[in-house]
Amino acid sequence: MESAIPEHLRSERTRHRRVPDDYTPPYPSFVARHRTDVGRVVMAYFGVQYRGAPSPTADAALATIAARFAAVDGPSHWDRAWHVDQAGFTNVLSVAYWDDIAAFDRWFGPARAAWTGDIHAGAGIGFFIEVIRPAVEGYETLFSSPDRAEGVAVLADRMSGEVQEHAYWGGMRDRIALSQTSDLAPRGAAELVVDGPRRRVVVHDNLCLIRSGQDWSDTDAAERAMYLGDVEPVLRAGMDFLRDEGRPIGCYANRYAAVVTADGDVTEKSYGMSWWKSLAALERWAESHPTHVRIFGAAMTYLSSLGPNAKLRLYHEVSLARSDEQFFEYLGCHDGTGLLTAVL
Amino acid sequence: MESAIPEHLRSERTRHRRVPDDYTPPYPSFVARHRTDVGRVVMAYFGVQYRGAPSPTADAALATIAARFAAVDGPSHWDRAWHVDQAGFTNVLSVAYWDDIAAFDRWFGPARAAWTGDIHAGAGIGFFIEVIRPAVEGYETLFSSPDRAEGVAVLADRMSGEVQEHAYWGGMRDRIALSQTSDLAPRGAAELVVDGPRRRVVVHDNLCLIRSGQDWSDTDAAERAMYLGDVEPVLRAGMDFLRDEGRPIGCYANRYAAVVTADGDVTEKSYGMSWWKSLAALERWAESHPTHVRIFGAAMTYLSSLGPNAKLRLYHEVSLARSDEQFFEYLGCHDGTGLLTAVL
Repeated sequence: MESAIPEHLRSERTRHRRVPDDYTPPYPSFVARHRTDVGRVVMAYFGVQYRGAPSPTADAALATIAARFAAVDGPSHWDRAWHVDQAGFTNVLSVAYWDDIAAFDRWFGPARAAWTGDIHAGAGIGFFIEVIRPAVEGYETLFSSPDRAEGVAVLADRMSGEVQEHAYWGGMRDRIALSQTSDLAPRGAAELVVDGPRRRVVVHDNLCLIRSGQDWSDTDAAERAMYLGDVEPVLRAGMDFLRDEGRPIGCYANRYAAVVTADGDVTEKSYGMSWWKSLAALERWAESHPTHVRIFGAAMTYLSSLGPNAKLRLYHEVSLARSDEQFFEYLGCHDGTGLLTAVL
Repeated sequence: MESAIPEHLRSERTRHRRVPDDYTPPYPSFVARHRTDVGRVVMAYFGVQYRGAPSPTADAALATIAARFAAVDGPSHWDRAWHVDQAGFTNVLSVAYWDDIAAFDRWFGPARAAWTGDIHAGAGIGFFIEVIRPAVEGYETLFSSPDRAEGVAVLADRMSGEVQEHAYWGGMRDRIALSQTSDLAPRGAAELVVDGPRRRVVVHDNLCLIRSGQDWSDTDAAERAMYLGDVEPVLRAGMDFLRDEGRPIGCYANRYAAVVTADGDVTEKSYGMSWWKSLAALERWAESHPTHVRIFGAAMTYLSSLGPNAKLRLYHEVSLARSDEQFFEYLGCHDGTGLLTAVL
């Protein structure tokens, strides 16, 4: 049993964990471990937004960004997914991760120009970029199995052994190294910057991002039927709630996305990614909102009936970003897109 | 909105609450407010235990203790309830509350002699006394409505206005004044003292007691049917689990008891009372054990379908006791009774 907070990120606590030192979680979970010289990562969501069928412009942009990802200084890992938003638009998300900030900075300028630059102004479809670059003290991961990394964890050196801080409400916070000394509360106000056809948003400090994924590709027929029949509809209802009605409870945006291959083929993976006013707001929804309590109940029933035989894989990454660790830019997108909801 | 911790019990925090200062609970709840000169209370459970029909000895003892409660220095409030334990014995609990410790101390000696004294040795039925006398910093209450006190709250001066620290996991801890500076962890070891036919137990510091009650006497037919049909069976299953299988998760004993009048007539009230190794163990069960997650889910579905029209009343009191604030004595009781499970 080890702490989710690696040795080199431990600090003199001014704030306590929620569980006693002798707490033992009822089932195993794992976290990604970076090399100790990794101090910061980049999580970059490149979105293209359109209504109806994809246009040649969208297809070309997706091919171009994939080529850029593969080029020098490109990300260590990326994946693609799509979802339909609350306004009925399709959004294709290409999500890329770096742990070499200098490489990202060299790479990003031309990539940004090719995505939200004037080349796409008046294209009739939307483009957006949502980037945070949290310090390793500012995010955490959690995996139900240690043998298949997703998201930022693909960049990691390895998976941990079984960690202590999970399977209780508050574990998410306790896995974030900054929580040893910070309340992680939002500070400052969100700001809209209009730059010709582009709109940029600078949100407050401690903006919170969660990407929470599921992978049922290894399940056999019986387990798959149980996941798709009993769990997925409840998960979808919760995701729809956050997408459509999340604003009053502090969820700026939620995208429940189906992972596709670079060629656009569907996979048996999905994730929800959402932007929150605060970690506390995310905690409150997860712990007590009927939509998440039902998800939690369905997942618990599922996992307790399958036990260690479950082949469903679950993971998440939860990040906090100061305003100077954020870049959000929207071109031709509707007003309900992403962090625009924080200022419009 | 006010803090559950009254002004005069606030101290310089070394430990944080689980919610930010701007947290707003989604529905109202209330706590009991004592006069500021009340520093400590007594919670005393007098149990009589028998198999099958009550004997004349049991009946006489119950009548006698009721008379003693009504005499000088008796409790400010008491009530009676019964339950069947895991060994199939009926246990009648007479629960009494004092906020005048000196009065209790004057009252208790003769009452104890008449209950677990030699007069009942060899009676063929069991008698037990379970008393804690927590400081007001060491317990909390919570009520769904402010207009009907139960348990220790009957001694209080008044109910609070709406309090902030509820409707999230961890609220229970945050309502206990001691949590401002203490982790409330159990310390020390439980000890058995054999005194002739009597067995006494001194448990460790920060032993935890919860009494959690429900009152459906004001419900109309439709709501009563919903409570008794949808909620009560789930509650009972959780209570049975704690009674029969609670030991490995830190529950020394659980009694899900039906409240009766002093004459033994049934009422439309019940409570669960359980002894826990620690507040943390109680928190873990409440937050994540399938049996309580189902209770929570059933209660939430019930309350969210009725909203403010619900006439079901819910309350609890949760107390921590140091070993020098405890008195547990068993005469003629089976080994699975109460705190005997902590040492046998």
